[in-house]
Amino acid sequence: MRPAQTTAPTASAPHAPRAERRHLANVDWSLVSERVLVQQLQSRPDGPVSVSGWVETVRDQKRVQFVILRDETGAIQLVNPATRPEPEATDQDAATLALTDTISALTTGTFLTVHGELKHDERVKLGGVEIKIVSLDIAAAALPETPIAADSAQDKRMDWRFLDLRQRRNNLIFRVQTTLEHAMRTYWIERDYIEVHSPKLMASASESNAELFSLDYFGDDTAYLAQSPQFFKQMAQVAGFGKIFEIAPAFRADPSFTSRHATEFTSIDAEISWIDSHEDVAKMQEELLATAIAAVKEKHGAEIEELFGLEVVVPAIPFPRIPLAEAREIVKARGYDIPRTDGDLDPEGERQISAHVEETFGHQYVFITDYHPEIRAFYHMRDEQTGLTKSYDLLFKGVEITTGAQREHRVDVLIEQAKEKGLGAEHLDFYFDFFRYGAPPHGGFGMGLARVLMLLLGESSIREVTYLFRGPTRLAP
Amino acid sequence: MRPAQTTAPTASAPHAPRAERRHLANVDWSLVSERVLVQQLQSRPDGPVSVSGWVETVRDQKRVQFVILRDETGAIQLVNPATRPEPEATDQDAATLALTDTISALTTGTFLTVHGELKHDERVKLGGVEIKIVSLDIAAAALPETPIAADSAQDKRMDWRFLDLRQRRNNLIFRVQTTLEHAMRTYWIERDYIEVHSPKLMASASESNAELFSLDYFGDDTAYLAQSPQFFKQMAQVAGFGKIFEIAPAFRADPSFTSRHATEFTSIDAEISWIDSHEDVAKMQEELLATAIAAVKEKHGAEIEELFGLEVVVPAIPFPRIPLAEAREIVKARGYDIPRTDGDLDPEGERQISAHVEETFGHQYVFITDYHPEIRAFYHMRDEQTGLTKSYDLLFKGVEITTGAQREHRVDVLIEQAKEKGLGAEHLDFYFDFFRYGAPPHGGFGMGLARVLMLLLGESSIREVTYLFRGPTRLAP
Repeated sequence: MRPAQTTAPTASAPHAPRAERRHLANVDWSLVSERVLVQQLQSRPDGPVSVSGWVETVRDQKRVQFVILRDETGAIQLVNPATRPEPEATDQDAATLALTDTISALTTGTFLTVHGELKHDERVKLGGVEIKIVSLDIAAAALPETPIAADSAQDKRMDWRFLDLRQRRNNLIFRVQTTLEHAMRTYWIERDYIEVHSPKLMASASESNAELFSLDYFGDDTAYLAQSPQFFKQMAQVAGFGKIFEIAPAFRADPSFTSRHATEFTSIDAEISWIDSHEDVAKMQEELLATAIAAVKEKHGAEIEELFGLEVVVPAIPFPRIPLAEAREIVKARGYDIPRTDGDLDPEGERQISAHVEETFGHQYVFITDYHPEIRAFYHMRDEQTGLTKSYDLLFKGVEITTGAQREHRVDVLIEQAKEKGLGAEHLDFYFDFFRYGAPPHGGFGMGLARVLMLLLGESSIREVTYLFRGPTRLAP
Repeated sequence: MRPAQTTAPTASAPHAPRAERRHLANVDWSLVSERVLVQQLQSRPDGPVSVSGWVETVRDQKRVQFVILRDETGAIQLVNPATRPEPEATDQDAATLALTDTISALTTGTFLTVHGELKHDERVKLGGVEIKIVSLDIAAAALPETPIAADSAQDKRMDWRFLDLRQRRNNLIFRVQTTLEHAMRTYWIERDYIEVHSPKLMASASESNAELFSLDYFGDDTAYLAQSPQFFKQMAQVAGFGKIFEIAPAFRADPSFTSRHATEFTSIDAEISWIDSHEDVAKMQEELLATAIAAVKEKHGAEIEELFGLEVVVPAIPFPRIPLAEAREIVKARGYDIPRTDGDLDPEGERQISAHVEETFGHQYVFITDYHPEIRAFYHMRDEQTGLTKSYDLLFKGVEITTGAQREHRVDVLIEQAKEKGLGAEHLDFYFDFFRYGAPPHGGFGMGLARVLMLLLGESSIREVTYLFRGPTRLAP
């Protein structure tokens, strides 16, 4: 965000206090004081240039010094013909000697700005360009010992996440996240959805009373952290908002240590009115995902292939749909007996049905539909004919990423269904109130951002794709 | 989100269980089963149409019944020539009688779908169109007593926020919010910013130890709710992300009851590397705001003028800048003696300096700069010449909406400045670590979304522009 400047910054300029330049060649630095991103270097002509970033490696040879400098867009080779002190020589330039010393002392991770001469040279492997160093401004030097390497154990890398994130792969994850989310929001906004920010502090549980974080609220009250925006996104429907979305943190005091669970995660939620069934929600979601993944493929497809070794597949619409009972039959026919007795799939069952879909339809996604009310939330609407819920789970590469449903908007039916689950009115009455003053038919979904990213990039754990993971034993940094 | 259907939904279709139609005229409803939004009616030809929304008013006259139906896009007049039972008559149509009865019994807030004949008629004040009712499908009837009115006391309206939000004005607030945020995110994304989701659960305080919510974390640990993403957005800079943004909840256990404070609020944050000073941050922020407000004006300007009685002003760039000491002089010269002895402005001082700027420059915004370190956070960088911080507050119509600053990235200086404030290393060492392994010069700002919306729309309190306000005594619904 350095604006173009018409005069060179100097140490005395109030807005540009920089380390004193160690060397000034016969270059009008006023013309090159603007920072150039590494990815822009290839298309620039040879000549003076300034680049800012951090030191990735230093090769300090006797006669020549090489520094690989990385910024948020790429890496560039810096070169300096080393000038070593010669006891006999009397005409050595102090500044040239000092520059060589400075480069010798550079530690990995040090952030600096380099001023130098850009030169295109086919022999340079790294992009066919290099910069001959004229001077260096060190912003902050790194301690010499880097506590982690790219292949350190995950937990150790988490301790030093700010260093771990400097890896090009990790940087790409969050660029992909940015593109994915913006494409989703743009999809919604083009269709007149309203963005809401629902509260994360609640007076009661949002979904179940289990796995709930609670806190003292001014000594008088207990507040709970929202496990999902479920109730509040439904509230937007009775408020007549029509179509809404929210991307925000959600919290679960879940003691699990699996690769798919976190105590804090980013939840992608949408809720829409005047639907005929959960099928309308599924249609929106598949279109949303196809649109967003197409945006990711277009912007980052090549880099994902290079760094993650996989091709981003834009899913065809419609995604396959399989009723749960049929899915269980298919899984059984494949030779896997689901041990669960509640009629649901287990993680291996989810992998099996996804493998079947991949083999049969060549599709990475599948909606599993028609869940029995016993294994669904009380607010899922039930089909009058079958008695099954009007809901789905969406699996992506064998992992559940979403639950979607039409909600029960008839308050008497809703209360009845809550009672069936043993949920009393004392905590839910504020929610039941939403439906006592009129309500449209509505439904929506919640989707875990990290799960989508993990699967999209073929990563083994959501910890790798979360900026700062939070788990039962992980609360820092 | 009702897709076009080629067959009319019937009660037996598994995806379309609706209340049985009370009356079916000689209309092919398969052609009109798709929901039409109210705002689209004016441009449609006369003929059969289906509209869904909620009942705003019913005028049940002897010979004719009028219903005002509102959806998320507007309101439409429905009309029915009432058919009252006549004891003498034998040829009265039961369905026609029943329709009249149904309309007589409609309660305000009831959500329904109406099928009828659209008719353009200049005499109809509400948009010049009305719908002659053929049949009604009631989705969920409202209780007859509505607990609040548009002019109920604020706290009572908060109790029934889901009804309060049905007001057209309130709906517009969240459409403005949506446009404002999307324009900001688009501004950033066009400039290659990365979107991050920083954790809200922390092992220590993010800014100060006061006004902190804490909670038990699996019995072993205490977690704190983030007061701001400050440390984590700085972490993105040492991670080499370059430029980042986040829009997310932040939490303060602030017992204040002012119109500008909440215990949970949406914080708009950005942080950028390789700046020369806070001036680079201010430049980005003023451009961001001008861009976003221009988008709001373009999309909602006319409606804001109609419903809030004010013109949205797109601010000219650059915004005026006034050093704090000078601002205090100006305020004093205006006849207001700031009672604070710490050298800062107080709320009345902020109003005064903004009034001065409005009168002198015709501008609604002003950056107040050059704050003394004593009244700023320890991590604000200080100017080497003046000793004052390289920071600013941004005032909008006399209210502070932002603090921005260049951050101190030199770890030894940073530790020293923390010490000065009496902040020990025990809680901050994880933060100091960020800067021990190299860091770029960087800075950013945090901005309260609700404050911006409140001022933009001329509202008196952030409670009016927050989806569900949270305060010391407000945790529900």
